[in-house]
Amino acid sequence: MSVKIELMPIGTVAGGRADMRDDGWAEEHALIILDDRFDSGVLTGLDQFSHALIVFQLHKVRLEKIVAGARHPRNNPSWPKVGIFAQRAKNRPNRLAVSACKIEGVEGSTLKVSGLDAIDGSPVLDIKPYMKGFDPQEPVTEPDWASDLMQGYWK
Amino acid sequence: MSVKIELMPIGTVAGGRADMRDDGWAEEHALIILDDRFDSGVLTGLDQFSHALIVFQLHKVRLEKIVAGARHPRNNPSWPKVGIFAQRAKNRPNRLAVSACKIEGVEGSTLKVSGLDAIDGSPVLDIKPYMKGFDPQEPVTEPDWASDLMQGYWK
Repeated sequence: MSVKIELMPIGTVAGGRADMRDDGWAEEHALIILDDRFDSGVLTGLDQFSHALIVFQLHKVRLEKIVAGARHPRNNPSWPKVGIFAQRAKNRPNRLAVSACKIEGVEGSTLKVSGLDAIDGSPVLDIKPYMKGFDPQEPVTEPDWASDLMQGYWK
Repeated sequence: MSVKIELMPIGTVAGGRADMRDDGWAEEHALIILDDRFDSGVLTGLDQFSHALIVFQLHKVRLEKIVAGARHPRNNPSWPKVGIFAQRAKNRPNRLAVSACKIEGVEGSTLKVSGLDAIDGSPVLDIKPYMKGFDPQEPVTEPDWASDLMQGYWK
């Protein structure tokens, strides 16, 4: 029923870390360097926001590692088996990530960020300003395992 | 420098509204029907979360409408001209949307949601549980126009 969708990266992550460790992302600094088909006007005004949402591909995940059935997040047996669309694991269909990060500055067609959980070289598909109005309109609840898993993610 | 990325939709939005009006999304109800290559195991555990993040394509935006230069959000001259990556307008490169919505239930390989700002037939590229740990770790600030623009978005 589905038809393939072709996307063209708008830019690339440069810097940050080179490998796919899970935790300790808050201190990472990186650049998002836009493809040269864009001029700096596409980022005009982004420095008025504290945060951005980055859509990128987890390009280092090998296709044969992509899972669909339920499994324990991070293979931790003390957490329940959940489906790939009920967790944020990397090895997911389409290998897409959506991450909020702090905006450190805009220089021409380069965005400087910190706390972005992307590795060096990741293809970037979109940059959006983080607007509070798009947060959930109701209180957010999640299972305990989801809060446990995030304990060391940033620090 | 960039290489095309091919993605396969994981499912489709069914229901919700048929057109692209900007405001009043909170009351919309829709289904996300997974492609039949997935079994219901991929959604196991998602009903333990109150909200999900949906990555979908704004497939009704015509390619020739995609803009790059700075412009007034919603063509409102009282808001500043900002680049396409400093606003959430639909007509953006790759036409990707990332939206939080309320989970109303999971039935087999169908996810029932409300408050999703997607129109009927939108191709869905990913479903992620909304985990509080991925919210920005610092206070979020935004320019006044961004708060103004969202006044009528949900209600």
